Amino acid sequence: MTGTTAMREDLYPSRKGAGPRILEREDRVVYAAWTPGAPLSQEQTRTYGRDGVLVLENLFTADEIRLLQREAAQLHRTWESFKEETAILEPGGQALRSVFAIHAQNDIFARLAADARLVKIARFLLRSEIYIHQSRLNYKPGFDGKDFYWHSDFETWHVEDGMARMRALSMSILLTENFPFNGPTMFIPGSHRRFISCVGETPDDHYRSSLRRQEYGVPDRGSLARLAEDGILMPTGEAGTTVIFDCNTLHGSNSNISPFPRSNVFFVYNAAVNRLEAPFGPAMPRPEWVASRTGIEIIQPVEGHLVPDAA
Amino acid sequence: MTGTTAMREDLYPSRKGAGPRILEREDRVVYAAWTPGAPLSQEQTRTYGRDGVLVLENLFTADEIRLLQREAAQLHRTWESFKEETAILEPGGQALRSVFAIHAQNDIFARLAADARLVKIARFLLRSEIYIHQSRLNYKPGFDGKDFYWHSDFETWHVEDGMARMRALSMSILLTENFPFNGPTMFIPGSHRRFISCVGETPDDHYRSSLRRQEYGVPDRGSLARLAEDGILMPTGEAGTTVIFDCNTLHGSNSNISPFPRSNVFFVYNAAVNRLEAPFGPAMPRPEWVASRTGIEIIQPVEGHLVPDAA
Repeated sequence: MTGTTAMREDLYPSRKGAGPRILEREDRVVYAAWTPGAPLSQEQTRTYGRDGVLVLENLFTADEIRLLQREAAQLHRTWESFKEETAILEPGGQALRSVFAIHAQNDIFARLAADARLVKIARFLLRSEIYIHQSRLNYKPGFDGKDFYWHSDFETWHVEDGMARMRALSMSILLTENFPFNGPTMFIPGSHRRFISCVGETPDDHYRSSLRRQEYGVPDRGSLARLAEDGILMPTGEAGTTVIFDCNTLHGSNSNISPFPRSNVFFVYNAAVNRLEAPFGPAMPRPEWVASRTGIEIIQPVEGHLVPDAA
Repeated sequence: MTGTTAMREDLYPSRKGAGPRILEREDRVVYAAWTPGAPLSQEQTRTYGRDGVLVLENLFTADEIRLLQREAAQLHRTWESFKEETAILEPGGQALRSVFAIHAQNDIFARLAADARLVKIARFLLRSEIYIHQSRLNYKPGFDGKDFYWHSDFETWHVEDGMARMRALSMSILLTENFPFNGPTMFIPGSHRRFISCVGETPDDHYRSSLRRQEYGVPDRGSLARLAEDGILMPTGEAGTTVIFDCNTLHGSNSNISPFPRSNVFFVYNAAVNRLEAPFGPAMPRPEWVASRTGIEIIQPVEGHLVPDAA
């Protein structure tokens, strides 16, 4: 711990104790009060608050989705052009798994990140101006897509990046159809209302391996089993389906041996009032392209269609 | 190839050619003609013939399933008592994955293997007396159940065991609920009507590793993608659900990070007229407990309830 953070309160301590603990969430989930003018229905707002995950269909038109798919396919062929560290490969292979900071490296995905249909929902739920904490384009190839173990994004963002409070959310826009059998992301509904304090210290430069495979900040099996007692939600749906989930909702995915790849683009919106401090774990924060810290831009929603000609 | 088998015709050559090929099936799928007295409905018989897989519910009563579950749990605690080679552990771990020859090592599963509800269906579909080619009890633990890549059982049984023709089928009785998210077995419907001739020779003693992880007899991605164009079937259902599938239906499973384990008991019935010859691949056949060769017992169906007191 650095000198400047020694006296700071840590509401969500993790990777510090001898054993795992389940703590209560100290923050709201839905920050704004619902009104008829809200960008989500009252029912959708309730679902998000209760489950920590909400699935929206038909937010985009078919030609918008085709545009995003074409762009993702194009980038998959030319990924060597990205900033080296931002392209993450599958473990043990040369297959591209993710491109980080996609909104900062591609105009179409930058436009999508600022789209009013997404941004207005994020601003409503967080009741704040917002910026992009992290973005990425994920490819989960067919035949050998690896599994990704259960985790709370917030646990990592808190310990390794210094995000103090739970006032961030993720939006994942599916670029391929999610079937039950091609390794879609699974969520534990309601898990966002607890915080699993994990065991084990964080080694330096942990992010280099953890973006491929989780090793630290791993919830214990007892806590997972308890939180999953009421079941697991595995959203399936056509390309274009948008899944919104709280920063602390436990999620993970099984492997994908099916021939059907699974891709999505993923934006994390953080409340401007919740910007990063010094990490609560290791002294050195992770790099900008994993967790925006300096040069943050408040997002102004852009109205209209992603494909201007077709609007 | 040994001297005695040099002139033998091989209808389903595999692991011999330079490249993969898709061959037509030379054998029937449903051997008997359907009559109103058959143990399957006409619709069920058609489904099995078309898809190579059929799901049956409510074949067993709740107390029969509880008996099987109790027995499986008991065996999981005492697996050191089995013949050493028949207990297969998860890769890299000490967790029990499967027990082979379960019908030969446990009275309750022996009784189940001979149950008239299963045996009459197998005898009808194969139009033959039958015996057990292989049996096993599978545990797919929660949290770290590994995936199992696509394969045709027949490809292995043909090459490594010397099963000449496609006249065998498997029955899997679920001992836990199959959810979409706990790594259930997936099938490629219709794939049984083709035969993917795989590349690569078989090393000696391949079975020692292949029971844990497939490395030879692996279908190529191009053929898999073609056969899976119309989709993938992933049967879900309560404990007791019985899945019947042809020896040549391609199947596999994704990993299981969910807390929910997945167990089943699995019997392979082969037509007595189709008993094993010399392997079509390596000279040395696999051991008895993986593929019955000598001392085969024709199964006589046993009528009645598995739990006599409750019948």
